[in-house]
Amino acid sequence: MGIKRRKISVIGSGFTGATTALMLAQKELGDVVLVDIPDMEDPTKGKALDMAEAAPVQGFDAAVQGTSDYEDTQGSDLVIITAGIARKPGMSRDDLVNTNAKIMKTVTKDIVKYSPDTTIVVLTNPVDAMTYTVYKESGLPKERVIGQSGVLDTARFRAFVAEELNLSVKDITGFVLGGHGDDMVPMIRYSYAGGIPLEKLISKERLDEIVARTRTGGGEIVNLLGNGSAYYAPAASLTVMAEAILKDQRRVIPSIAYLEGEYGYSDIYLGVPTILGGNGIEEIIELDLTAEEKSQLDKSADSVKNVLRILD
Amino acid sequence: MGIKRRKISVIGSGFTGATTALMLAQKELGDVVLVDIPDMEDPTKGKALDMAEAAPVQGFDAAVQGTSDYEDTQGSDLVIITAGIARKPGMSRDDLVNTNAKIMKTVTKDIVKYSPDTTIVVLTNPVDAMTYTVYKESGLPKERVIGQSGVLDTARFRAFVAEELNLSVKDITGFVLGGHGDDMVPMIRYSYAGGIPLEKLISKERLDEIVARTRTGGGEIVNLLGNGSAYYAPAASLTVMAEAILKDQRRVIPSIAYLEGEYGYSDIYLGVPTILGGNGIEEIIELDLTAEEKSQLDKSADSVKNVLRILD
Amino acid sequence: MGIKRRKISVIGSGFTGATTALMLAQKELGDVVLVDIPDMEDPTKGKALDMAEAAPVQGFDAAVQGTSDYEDTQGSDLVIITAGIARKPGMSRDDLVNTNAKIMKTVTKDIVKYSPDTTIVVLTNPVDAMTYTVYKESGLPKERVIGQSGVLDTARFRAFVAEELNLSVKDITGFVLGGHGDDMVPMIRYSYAGGIPLEKLISKERLDEIVARTRTGGGEIVNLLGNGSAYYAPAASLTVMAEAILKDQRRVIPSIAYLEGEYGYSDIYLGVPTILGGNGIEEIIELDLTAEEKSQLDKSADSVKNVLRILD
Amino acid sequence: MGIKRRKISVIGSGFTGATTALMLAQKELGDVVLVDIPDMEDPTKGKALDMAEAAPVQGFDAAVQGTSDYEDTQGSDLVIITAGIARKPGMSRDDLVNTNAKIMKTVTKDIVKYSPDTTIVVLTNPVDAMTYTVYKESGLPKERVIGQSGVLDTARFRAFVAEELNLSVKDITGFVLGGHGDDMVPMIRYSYAGGIPLEKLISKERLDEIVARTRTGGGEIVNLLGNGSAYYAPAASLTVMAEAILKDQRRVIPSIAYLEGEYGYSDIYLGVPTILGGNGIEEIIELDLTAEEKSQLDKSADSVKNVLRILD
Repeated sequence: MGIKRRKISVIGSGFTGATTALMLAQKELGDVVLVDIPDMEDPTKGKALDMAEAAPVQGFDAAVQGTSDYEDTQGSDLVIITAGIARKPGMSRDDLVNTNAKIMKTVTKDIVKYSPDTTIVVLTNPVDAMTYTVYKESGLPKERVIGQSGVLDTARFRAFVAEELNLSVKDITGFVLGGHGDDMVPMIRYSYAGGIPLEKLISKERLDEIVARTRTGGGEIVNLLGNGSAYYAPAASLTVMAEAILKDQRRVIPSIAYLEGEYGYSDIYLGVPTILGGNGIEEIIELDLTAEEKSQLDKSADSVKNVLRILD
Repeated sequence: MGIKRRKISVIGSGFTGATTALMLAQKELGDVVLVDIPDMEDPTKGKALDMAEAAPVQGFDAAVQGTSDYEDTQGSDLVIITAGIARKPGMSRDDLVNTNAKIMKTVTKDIVKYSPDTTIVVLTNPVDAMTYTVYKESGLPKERVIGQSGVLDTARFRAFVAEELNLSVKDITGFVLGGHGDDMVPMIRYSYAGGIPLEKLISKERLDEIVARTRTGGGEIVNLLGNGSAYYAPAASLTVMAEAILKDQRRVIPSIAYLEGEYGYSDIYLGVPTILGGNGIEEIIELDLTAEEKSQLDKSADSVKNVLRILD
Repeated sequence: MGIKRRKISVIGSGFTGATTALMLAQKELGDVVLVDIPDMEDPTKGKALDMAEAAPVQGFDAAVQGTSDYEDTQGSDLVIITAGIARKPGMSRDDLVNTNAKIMKTVTKDIVKYSPDTTIVVLTNPVDAMTYTVYKESGLPKERVIGQSGVLDTARFRAFVAEELNLSVKDITGFVLGGHGDDMVPMIRYSYAGGIPLEKLISKERLDEIVARTRTGGGEIVNLLGNGSAYYAPAASLTVMAEAILKDQRRVIPSIAYLEGEYGYSDIYLGVPTILGGNGIEEIIELDLTAEEKSQLDKSADSVKNVLRILD
Repeated sequence: MGIKRRKISVIGSGFTGATTALMLAQKELGDVVLVDIPDMEDPTKGKALDMAEAAPVQGFDAAVQGTSDYEDTQGSDLVIITAGIARKPGMSRDDLVNTNAKIMKTVTKDIVKYSPDTTIVVLTNPVDAMTYTVYKESGLPKERVIGQSGVLDTARFRAFVAEELNLSVKDITGFVLGGHGDDMVPMIRYSYAGGIPLEKLISKERLDEIVARTRTGGGEIVNLLGNGSAYYAPAASLTVMAEAILKDQRRVIPSIAYLEGEYGYSDIYLGVPTILGGNGIEEIIELDLTAEEKSQLDKSADSVKNVLRILD
């Protein structure tokens, strides 16, 4: 009956999954179980062990375990899904979607088998559709299956603005709706430097350029790395969502949420402003949109629906 | 005349270098310049950009820049060298040593050209010899060229002991002298759990096993990963040394230091207990050794000298 | 030529001064010298010693020294002035102003004698006039003499809004211009919850009540305490300004700044949005004001001038 | 069924209680309820409000509430008792003991009424006897009623040693058994700087002086302050114990524990090395003592028993 540490499972031990595990442990948000397929068990164990060996130096008390056995995830308070493949040259989008959807179904079945009351945060792309897939497969209430995209998109936007204005990242905020990357609906009028609307500090042209760069921010990293995609900012984004939930912070965070009428959409996962707390998505905040914003959001929703159609 | 942020350059943008850059930035120890060779410039920029995009989410104010141009390192308060190749199958130890020594000479020349008063911390293996090479090439005073190995070795030891006793890593301490890994001289009598000597809490047999596992701790990770070597714990180890220097903390930290008579050795870099502060190695602590410890340390020193001989 | 820790002196060892010293030390922003008059030397030493004894448990490396000798402040990178008397029953405002102005002159003389290039942050009330007095007495450039009021006023506002909306304090921002407390000019249109303008989330009536409560936030605490005034939030406010300067963060922070034409005022210290960094106030941000805001700011400026007139 | 923040109640809103509440909130260990008697309700509310207003600036999400109604403590995961009077001139020790025992009984009744499964940490002096009183009154299992003294005693010892050796407080450890202050049994042979036994670094005479200063460390602060006693280091000590329990860290921490045969004593609360985790005192570590240490510990136990006798 004593106090137990929280338990967090991270599915997928690639760079993003592993970096997420590190960041969760650094913040002592709970013990971390890093899970991958049996073929990857050894590297997964290796990464987890390396992190466990960093713990005494960084001073964090959080067990980090690598495994391919879902039984080790039993009783997780939170599960983060980073598993899935990246689109390879020559692969059709449909193939990507179907492959990752199959992975989502498999891992979700395993997750809820051992943690039937957990909350799940999904990163795998295309994230709106994958979150939908996890939701349907899990049988969990909608507020407990959440997708990540807006934190990362605004993180990139904020970094570019901070650099542009040579200001602390702490004082730059951004706001997006809709899908990830290209499908993102930037809400510049709700984006600020120290509370001052960015439109007053940066010319429209430069803002457009920054928005354009944000849209393709994932691709920019892919191109630079040459081999692989971003993982530091994605992991940080997952960690801040995990923290909001595990510490019941009721933070205002853009999430990919299941809509039932909000913003005029239904039976779809789409990026909207939410309140994240101990119950997962505790609230969806509905904003009045301009005609242009609504039209962009419609486009974003269409894009999600098109992907969902592939799944049928 | 105002206050400037500290500047830290990390040479080598592999996993260890990149993770070190992240950890330095997370602690807001200064702005970070991540440097690699021109061929790796794009991936280096990619990793740095990814970290810069994590900054708004993690809330750290530290610029992270990727480059292949040493001019960007100008005026570094601290430089950390992680560059170098790992031993590949079929490569003789002499080849490894000579290749990395050549790399050390090149990067050191570039470092001191732009930061003639800096302090350098070296991670590249074989670290005792590589630190020696950097020292000779740099022309810096001995207290400003420092090698890492003891923090990592004790980190592993501490992690294993914490697991064995199921205790907080915060309360486990370890103590080593001599070289890295196999050449390490474990000082169990100076290793504790909550101040209680480990010998009172763990049987001699289990302690021997833990020491043996620590000696081969790097290899254990290499074997698990299958491809590549540890980077989380090495990066954490470099970061704690950097913090001690940049915050002038005068911490008691095992370092690879240039000896001029201490412990009976001269003109050699060897792992000894040191006080790390704003001046680099501010003091070398000399301990009375048992006959067995001294003999092990002799062996360790011989091993370093053998490597140095290759360099001639 | 090594790296030295920053040095911060806090003048006045009352609750606010002492709590500020604690918070500076907790963040390892530098070594802290807590200074008070000779009559208070022992209690000042007692508080500093108590903090120094907290350091091993909280794990911060920062010397905290209590003294009445300004020689101990020599070479301070930053000085924070909390000294001064509070208004007592029966004391006229003029008496308060003149007494505290005298204190400001004395301590400023002592400060710049030992730290001629320092930056000074002033908390003492009436803070606009006291910052002006310190500026004139110090001979320091205007960007290096800064008053605190807006951080505290917005802190209170943010706390009240977070409570009203049951949201994380991390996501609530506020914005004020002008003087402290009653003279504050709230900029509700630049105040947000998760980037969403508060006007969309809280009724005008409740917002007015929250603003009214903020204006008298200092008095609310005074009334509750019965004896003495607030110190936790004031100390936190001073600490965040100190951190912005000492870590050269270029944060957007409302400060009491010396105006030379900005917002239409000259030779006056008034609360305006500023960029705080290693050079103190690196920039004053000028915003377009509505007629109502401008008129409120005029009233605030008049109020400051009235106090300044007492000083002649 | 979602995740709830931990809840911590701090009984007694004096400087130690209030500072403890601040430190618990700063670490986001849970929501904090600060409780005092009805006569002190307003000041208690004032301090709590002041802290709540510091939260947005320091960035911590933790509600801090002041109250005199124990119903507000309902469901506390942890309760910390700082209530009680300090010995005043002319007051006999027996009077002090009986007055504080009466307070302990009253507050304990109220605590367990609303949190029947909680864990309680006691600071009130004489702490061994007061912890015993709380234990008997509470009906809680022995491992859930814990007294603080060793963390504070070693904190002072560590601070003095760090100053003596001019080393980081992070690397100095101390070890005590027995009662608080005068009754403390210092275990110098288990006290280290960077793992090196202090006896090798400091002369016996200086160590004796440091031990003597530690014994009277509370009195040193009382004398300096002139009015009141230490609160920063005591609050930090309570906070580290709270953190070990609330984060289930299994830290090795000296606690005042109920003994049933350990060290040869029974039905007594005495300072011994313990493992603190989610279940409170998870283990008592028994060490072999030298004859001198055992005799000092006997003296310490006698002293506790003498106080307990007053209570009959």
